[in-house]
Amino acid sequence: MADHGLDALLIPRSDDFQGENVPENAERLAWLTGFDGSVGMALVTRDQAMIFVDGRYHLQVKQQVDTVLFTPCDSKDPGWQEGVKQCLPQGGRIGYDPWLHTLDWLDRQQRIFKDIPLEWVPLDRNIIDLAWHDRPSPPDQPAMFYPLCFAGKTVGDKISVLRGRLAQTGAALLITQPEHLAWLLNLRGGDVPYTPVMLARALLAPDGTITVFADPHRVPDQVLVDIAAQYPGGNIVVSPPETLASILTAVTGGICYDPARTPAMMGCFIKQPLPLPSPIESLKAVQNPIELRGMKAAHCRDAVAMIRFLSWLDRAAQNLDNEPQSEISVAEKLLWFRQQQENFVQPSFATIAGFAGHGAIVHYRATPATDSRLTTGELLLIDSGGQYWDGTTDITRTVPIGPPTPTMAYHYTLVLRGHIALGEAVFPPGTMGSQLDVLARLPLWQNGLDYDHGTGHGVGCFLGVHDGPQRISKAAGSVSLEPGMVLSNEPGYYLADHFGIRIENLVIVSETPVLHETSGQSMFGFENLTLVPYCRDLILPSFLCEREKRVINHYHTTIFDQIADLLDEQDRQWLERATAPI
Amino acid sequence: MADHGLDALLIPRSDDFQGENVPENAERLAWLTGFDGSVGMALVTRDQAMIFVDGRYHLQVKQQVDTVLFTPCDSKDPGWQEGVKQCLPQGGRIGYDPWLHTLDWLDRQQRIFKDIPLEWVPLDRNIIDLAWHDRPSPPDQPAMFYPLCFAGKTVGDKISVLRGRLAQTGAALLITQPEHLAWLLNLRGGDVPYTPVMLARALLAPDGTITVFADPHRVPDQVLVDIAAQYPGGNIVVSPPETLASILTAVTGGICYDPARTPAMMGCFIKQPLPLPSPIESLKAVQNPIELRGMKAAHCRDAVAMIRFLSWLDRAAQNLDNEPQSEISVAEKLLWFRQQQENFVQPSFATIAGFAGHGAIVHYRATPATDSRLTTGELLLIDSGGQYWDGTTDITRTVPIGPPTPTMAYHYTLVLRGHIALGEAVFPPGTMGSQLDVLARLPLWQNGLDYDHGTGHGVGCFLGVHDGPQRISKAAGSVSLEPGMVLSNEPGYYLADHFGIRIENLVIVSETPVLHETSGQSMFGFENLTLVPYCRDLILPSFLCEREKRVINHYHTTIFDQIADLLDEQDRQWLERATAPI
Repeated sequence: MADHGLDALLIPRSDDFQGENVPENAERLAWLTGFDGSVGMALVTRDQAMIFVDGRYHLQVKQQVDTVLFTPCDSKDPGWQEGVKQCLPQGGRIGYDPWLHTLDWLDRQQRIFKDIPLEWVPLDRNIIDLAWHDRPSPPDQPAMFYPLCFAGKTVGDKISVLRGRLAQTGAALLITQPEHLAWLLNLRGGDVPYTPVMLARALLAPDGTITVFADPHRVPDQVLVDIAAQYPGGNIVVSPPETLASILTAVTGGICYDPARTPAMMGCFIKQPLPLPSPIESLKAVQNPIELRGMKAAHCRDAVAMIRFLSWLDRAAQNLDNEPQSEISVAEKLLWFRQQQENFVQPSFATIAGFAGHGAIVHYRATPATDSRLTTGELLLIDSGGQYWDGTTDITRTVPIGPPTPTMAYHYTLVLRGHIALGEAVFPPGTMGSQLDVLARLPLWQNGLDYDHGTGHGVGCFLGVHDGPQRISKAAGSVSLEPGMVLSNEPGYYLADHFGIRIENLVIVSETPVLHETSGQSMFGFENLTLVPYCRDLILPSFLCEREKRVINHYHTTIFDQIADLLDEQDRQWLERATAPI
Repeated sequence: MADHGLDALLIPRSDDFQGENVPENAERLAWLTGFDGSVGMALVTRDQAMIFVDGRYHLQVKQQVDTVLFTPCDSKDPGWQEGVKQCLPQGGRIGYDPWLHTLDWLDRQQRIFKDIPLEWVPLDRNIIDLAWHDRPSPPDQPAMFYPLCFAGKTVGDKISVLRGRLAQTGAALLITQPEHLAWLLNLRGGDVPYTPVMLARALLAPDGTITVFADPHRVPDQVLVDIAAQYPGGNIVVSPPETLASILTAVTGGICYDPARTPAMMGCFIKQPLPLPSPIESLKAVQNPIELRGMKAAHCRDAVAMIRFLSWLDRAAQNLDNEPQSEISVAEKLLWFRQQQENFVQPSFATIAGFAGHGAIVHYRATPATDSRLTTGELLLIDSGGQYWDGTTDITRTVPIGPPTPTMAYHYTLVLRGHIALGEAVFPPGTMGSQLDVLARLPLWQNGLDYDHGTGHGVGCFLGVHDGPQRISKAAGSVSLEPGMVLSNEPGYYLADHFGIRIENLVIVSETPVLHETSGQSMFGFENLTLVPYCRDLILPSFLCEREKRVINHYHTTIFDQIADLLDEQDRQWLERATAPI
């Protein structure tokens, strides 16, 4: 830092692709501080250091970080602003790696701190990397072709629609998100945990030529041949990442790019900038019929794994004295059941198995140090999912170990009422997720309760399990819900130190048989992808109205009809009991 | 127009205060075109003319305007943009009166038309006024003092809070909205129909001096004395409107003003502009306990008038052969019942009495030419309200004349279910009206139905019946719902050419007995101000759940308990039947 004349250095938890999952060699924040949450930033000055994390990680950061060295702070303003002001002198120089922060981020900082003189100094080498001697090597997985039987649309068709959207601009498109590149080129990879993408960028020229910036040896010839076969008359070039700067600089027309997902570094390479939200995002968000068919098939197999797991857990809970179980052991067992399923590749995120009080920590992940042994009389919350070749799953179920208390059941019933109300919503074209959010919260609100997270996030098809732009939350979003979008429906309730309850299904936005009276268009609704019963032992029928009971019973009947034949006798009997009418 | 070298002239339906109600001498659009809706604009070129109105007025404009002279167009874009582009040459000069358009409007035009060369020419004299020989004289009502027993807060207290909000800016505040001035100075007037304001502006200097721009003879000495008594140590000056320009120009520091409600003309007078939403708006939106007490008292008397009216209407409907009734005659009868009530001043807006198909025209107002005679087998929608010295009311009830069809009752029951669901909502601090809107629409959406207007607007206390900034609608608003705000709850359903159904209560945002589990703060909900029964003959109990029946029965019991003793025997018996349990 002294060599660079810096007063402070920023170490964010991000790589140069700014995605949720980063490769090991980019876990600089964890290396420096021990904190391994998904979002965070350290600010190191010459005589002190701070670590900024959001509300989800306030507990975790104190457990993982040496708080004598790093003072934990809230990353939301005013926490961040105050922190920076406090530990930096007037005119202070803050060093940052311009590959690890987006153009939007830099812009925001310059606005936030416009009234105090600070110098934001882009560094040409990452200072942490200089000190990190046993830093893992960068990811080097080969790209895989994602066959048409899963992708449902050819590369040529996708590029053609995309070029149509870009035609008016006459500009090239810089594709900075690995998920977008994966979708566009029917390409998958294994560079980061959980999301099957190759970390690479690309440039789509107005003439349709695509230049993929990746080490050429990472894209096998056969993959290129397969893609080219889907893009007749098109041109795909693989060029080493080092060529990005020179190729961008040589572009003579404009370049469209999404400033929210483009590293600040690239600002220097783009001569005629056309900032705009990525047009791929909204195309990718609406899954095509083949993708949806795959999602349904994957959810069917995932349901078999989950139901076998829940059936096993029921028996295991009665045998804890002889065969103890813990958060980690049940998560491993669940993974084992998924691994028995066809097309399973990997979990879609780190399983959350939160027992008793741990269930109330929304982003809890059991470690050997925190791993709780299961005992009776407590709740277990399990949020998990799988990446299958034909689709991505994400499901949360909450179950009691031994008999639950009436309080647990009462709160479970409230959460379930909200989950059902949202799932049963019927709404016209043009409706935003934020308009529907209240349906999931109202039963809790009526009891003075709430949950401090969104109600639903978008999900990709054998891609990111947290995807956008569609979502259901209190905050107004930017897009309306369109048929073919996949979202989660996951209200919850958390009683600190006691238990967490969350009920999560994935749903497809679908046309309903109800027609809009004046336009004649179909009204939209949600179709459940997830096919795993709710927990009968936690449902208090006296707090449900007849309509709610009908919805639950109908859902359970559907599950039994679709899944029972795929189970052995023992698990089939379990499912029969679990789906018996209320 | 030729004298000014203009290619086109704009004639908006607004005065120089840009409020919903304008004085007669500002009804230039009606004088020119015959159209008397609340929002609209004519564009006259040398060889053609267009009139732009929104969806509410598409029918009405065709009835009122000579469409050979004026082509009706939709005022929403692209209608407006296309219209302007079509009838103006490149580089065309559009004349406008800079007093009749806001700074925001001018800004927006310059953005919308930035790609085509147009010249927006402010005119120093209104061209219509030059031609309008029998133009009424400007309003000249004296201002009235609004006593503390109704206003609830002294002028001094209000100004002190306001100055606190402005302190950081060190600037003066330009008050351009008559409602804001009325609220701040506990002043009322009679310059426009329905809203008891004096059309005047004011400047609040940083030292607390208030200069009111109005003809001094319009502010009686006693009113000034009464205000001064509530503002010890303060200074109130009345200065003729003509002095506005010179006084504003002479201000040495900054001037805060709301560009959405400041005439474009004033842009020239403000040397150090500090555009910001008026800080009075949010202060005024939360009514104080005395105002709320007055609102409740006014609603109690308004309920007596409405119930007497509905009881009379019930009898009148059985006697139509002998004594015919029409939309206008029932509206007059309703006005008569209100006039019998203490503190009644005037209607709070033009009564909408829409019989049969007229009920489906959301902003219908019966004229002698359209006035329908009541016959049996149809619905009558009546949306009306009163200005009382102690509060403002606004209520819609829909009743059948003779026996209703099952279709009418089914749709009424759907609308009522939404109305009740919204009215019973419980929500945490920070909730926006847009988050709750779905509750009122969902029962309709489930049947492919909807209504094409907002669900709730703010209401002032003996001020505007359409007030802000609080509202309940699909579109995200800017403010959260706070205890003390008054809103309408008015879902509807409209079957073109057949009937309109709307059920509207006013409600207060209130603290509920439910406490937020973690913050310990009260959750919020709505308290009904309106105390008039729903229409039992239109409710289908089999489509209601038990909880909905309980809510209706509880509301009806409350009404009977509060109002029955204020009625004569005949009306009391009617109320007893109307509020009998379902």
